[in-house]
Amino acid sequence: MKLVIVGGVAGGASAAARARRLSEDAEILLLERGPDVSFANCGLPYHIGGVIPQRDKLLVTTPERLRERFRLDVRTRSEVVVIDRRKKAVRVRDLTSDREYEETYDKLILAPGAAPIRPPVPGADLPNVFTLRALADTDRIKSLADGGIQRAVVVGAGFIGLELAENFVHRGIATTVLDRNRQVLPPFDAEMTTPLLAALREKGVEVLLGQTAEAIDPDRDGLRITLTSGDTRTAQLVVLGVGVRPENALAVRAGLEVGPRGGVRVNEYLQTTDPDIFAVGDVIETTEVGTGERTQVPLAGPANRQGRIAADNAFGRATKYRGTQGTAILGCFGTTAAMTGQSEKALQRSGRPYRKVYVHPAHHAGYYPGAEGMTLKVIFDPATGKLLGAQGVGGAGVDKRIDVLAVAVQAGMTVLDLEETELCYAPQFGSAKDPVNMAGFVAGGLLRGDHPQTDWESVAAAADKPLLLDVRTPTEFASGHIPGALNIPVDDLRRRLAELPKGRPIVAYCQVGQRGYLATRILMQAGFAVSNLGGGYKTYLLHAPAPPTATTR
Amino acid sequence: MKLVIVGGVAGGASAAARARRLSEDAEILLLERGPDVSFANCGLPYHIGGVIPQRDKLLVTTPERLRERFRLDVRTRSEVVVIDRRKKAVRVRDLTSDREYEETYDKLILAPGAAPIRPPVPGADLPNVFTLRALADTDRIKSLADGGIQRAVVVGAGFIGLELAENFVHRGIATTVLDRNRQVLPPFDAEMTTPLLAALREKGVEVLLGQTAEAIDPDRDGLRITLTSGDTRTAQLVVLGVGVRPENALAVRAGLEVGPRGGVRVNEYLQTTDPDIFAVGDVIETTEVGTGERTQVPLAGPANRQGRIAADNAFGRATKYRGTQGTAILGCFGTTAAMTGQSEKALQRSGRPYRKVYVHPAHHAGYYPGAEGMTLKVIFDPATGKLLGAQGVGGAGVDKRIDVLAVAVQAGMTVLDLEETELCYAPQFGSAKDPVNMAGFVAGGLLRGDHPQTDWESVAAAADKPLLLDVRTPTEFASGHIPGALNIPVDDLRRRLAELPKGRPIVAYCQVGQRGYLATRILMQAGFAVSNLGGGYKTYLLHAPAPPTATTR
Repeated sequence: MKLVIVGGVAGGASAAARARRLSEDAEILLLERGPDVSFANCGLPYHIGGVIPQRDKLLVTTPERLRERFRLDVRTRSEVVVIDRRKKAVRVRDLTSDREYEETYDKLILAPGAAPIRPPVPGADLPNVFTLRALADTDRIKSLADGGIQRAVVVGAGFIGLELAENFVHRGIATTVLDRNRQVLPPFDAEMTTPLLAALREKGVEVLLGQTAEAIDPDRDGLRITLTSGDTRTAQLVVLGVGVRPENALAVRAGLEVGPRGGVRVNEYLQTTDPDIFAVGDVIETTEVGTGERTQVPLAGPANRQGRIAADNAFGRATKYRGTQGTAILGCFGTTAAMTGQSEKALQRSGRPYRKVYVHPAHHAGYYPGAEGMTLKVIFDPATGKLLGAQGVGGAGVDKRIDVLAVAVQAGMTVLDLEETELCYAPQFGSAKDPVNMAGFVAGGLLRGDHPQTDWESVAAAADKPLLLDVRTPTEFASGHIPGALNIPVDDLRRRLAELPKGRPIVAYCQVGQRGYLATRILMQAGFAVSNLGGGYKTYLLHAPAPPTATTR
Repeated sequence: MKLVIVGGVAGGASAAARARRLSEDAEILLLERGPDVSFANCGLPYHIGGVIPQRDKLLVTTPERLRERFRLDVRTRSEVVVIDRRKKAVRVRDLTSDREYEETYDKLILAPGAAPIRPPVPGADLPNVFTLRALADTDRIKSLADGGIQRAVVVGAGFIGLELAENFVHRGIATTVLDRNRQVLPPFDAEMTTPLLAALREKGVEVLLGQTAEAIDPDRDGLRITLTSGDTRTAQLVVLGVGVRPENALAVRAGLEVGPRGGVRVNEYLQTTDPDIFAVGDVIETTEVGTGERTQVPLAGPANRQGRIAADNAFGRATKYRGTQGTAILGCFGTTAAMTGQSEKALQRSGRPYRKVYVHPAHHAGYYPGAEGMTLKVIFDPATGKLLGAQGVGGAGVDKRIDVLAVAVQAGMTVLDLEETELCYAPQFGSAKDPVNMAGFVAGGLLRGDHPQTDWESVAAAADKPLLLDVRTPTEFASGHIPGALNIPVDDLRRRLAELPKGRPIVAYCQVGQRGYLATRILMQAGFAVSNLGGGYKTYLLHAPAPPTATTR
């Protein structure tokens, strides 16, 4: 048995190690185009920022280590240029000597990854305009930062773009981030990114939304970037972080099927349309767990697990990949944003019915010092209560709740199960009613019909405006409220029912939804047409539009 | 409808609030024997330690707030002394006036909690010998600490005992902790408490195991405590933290069924043997989710959720309580210990077959600064792989992994599902292969037979000792190894196979199990009778017995 693996970073390296554990006899050839195997892709921005000072730390393993430990035939700077499926052979170019040679295979695993998209912007090929994928890019960007440049522009406010922005600021580099969307972190629902946008701007990052680089020109001070608005910015460094596309050229030339967005098609065994060729990692099209729809999710975790599974299947084990649920996280300036499963915007695109709830709990008991706030959004099927997705934004503990919800999504749990989830409670770790339980209670109340809720979008869009009833204290009301709202504190509500109209729909709200829930129950039972504004004033504030080009610099 | 609730802390207060949301018309009477409702039980040790300086913070809510917001008839210092089930009435003693009166009920919810056990030790009733349950106890202990006492003895190394020890040390009080068991934190498996014991001793706590207080006598310096060994200790304060017993007297007198350990029997609707009387919280016997066995789990989270459910059922909704899985956590001197589901010792007692795995990963990517180590133990069914329980000990991120595993237990997942769990990964939050995935890989390998493993207990107990093969580097070997082990580094193993005996069983081990796994695969395929020592040398060290009465003071 001779296994050839193309690509030696996350999926390829995992496949190779797994293959050796499965078989001491197999000949295993790992071909990597670049100079490094298995480096810590996700650490690159932090090396630039000096958070990870030692470059060596980014080398998860070395070719020598892989050779010694796993007896792999590792060849770096070795590019596979052609797959001859009929002959079951690959043509390899040694990039050091420029020599080409052939290697046969019994099974082939493709793990070439994805390449950063370099948008067709005039000037995108100028010096000091970079994408960030490999250690070489990192070294070049870092040397500019080390050289003391003043200003950087990051095109694209996705995960890498925002991580870079944080690290540039850390280095004292004035940074502008552009995104053609009207939000940062486009995989997330827009309102959930509001706290992140605020954090970026508070730290002095200029975030320009609905804007991209239309042209880049050399300039006395480095580079001049012309924005969609016609404005310009000057910088000594531009990083393009607008996404990646599968490195599918080899697969396409070999006649393997690829999807509409370029991902190599694989079945649940990660087998391409050629049964002797598997593909893993950022190059493939995979299945979204919840919907069964095809998707492309370039993340390290799935790539690693796919590598293991492809190796299993190459050695004749029938191991299935369950699909990807798109769990992802960003930490930026002390704000964490995390998600799992389907977003509301994805559900709107697919037309699938859903309901959503918001809660704004503290990450641990409020009576213990240091509690940090968060917002959790949980999206579920309106008929069955089955979880479809979740997003969180805030400080400490967001990662924990999204991990808990990721498992709940994987298990096919409903929001009623979340009511009953039994999580760790001591005051420094959580609450007797954990944020996950709270989301379950709110969603369960909605699902059972105990707790009619309205989303801000419906209120904003309604032709006949409902009566907005603010049930917070007068002090809270005075410090900010939804325009036009009437203020009756929940504790006074029972004796002031006569002030409310019986015919007109009422939308009650408080700060986070809890008092609004009680008000809704009081008014429902008194015969009013009432619903609670989901997530209260805090959720309203998330929806309040931020100026797309506001700068606080 | 008139609902009477006996007890106003966690379960009782939750039931009352829920009841009001369900019905604006109901008459809801909340009777609490003590002076406070709904106080933060779990915060009491931290108020003593000054971590939560303001006493007010411990009052989650007040009688006034409950009256205003939920229109409850709240009566504190009001003890229910008799339930007349025939008349459907309770006899209430007003502890302020000592007057007694009767209140009828349509439905009754019992939430009297549990009382600390005061062991029958001579001197247990002396001044300055306390249990810790309510705010009044807290005030008395805190005033001694504030007065500058020198030494304290804590009897019982459970959750409250260890939290108190930490807070006493925080106040500069020299502290001795006794436990009659040969370990701290008795609900946990002993080996998982080894790092916690080390942390306690490192911080100067004198921990004496297999020891309790046999007598307490007045002494010139305060109190003289005589230990099981005959030694004595002097202290100005003794706290008895040896567990709680359900406050079942009222229920017993009313002829309601109680279990052998005193918990009031309830069905899945939390209904006692009288259909009009429900019971919740620390007073009840509940069901262990995994086994269906009856258990008593005095924890705040379950009490709160049970309160909601009992209120639902009192108002005619058929809401089931799924049982309790015993998720619990302790933070002490920077070490976290957490568990969910069944422990190994509980499984041994019940005779249920199980397998276990240990992993010792870092809480986030090792290449990112600040990674802290942890040990995770995952216990599962040997036939199906279904999760039975999990325990974790270490630094940051233990709470997250046990929460994730708590949901996995709730969902009935198998260890194979853990291989595929898709959790948040960025280097400051986790790893591409999260600790939960790692535990899944190790357990999955064991379940599929790819990865034969031996536990240290079997090696220690074996009549024919296997050959212990240490596959770490010579440097690691020199810094400590299992007595009698042979050292062949894994990277040299393939060329040194001739040094190993073919007939004799070999147990390979490395530091955490990963190189041992590869060594096992190499040797298996070469025809040796080999297994890997689960969790490696680090797990061996957990089992290495600590001196039960060692002091490092």
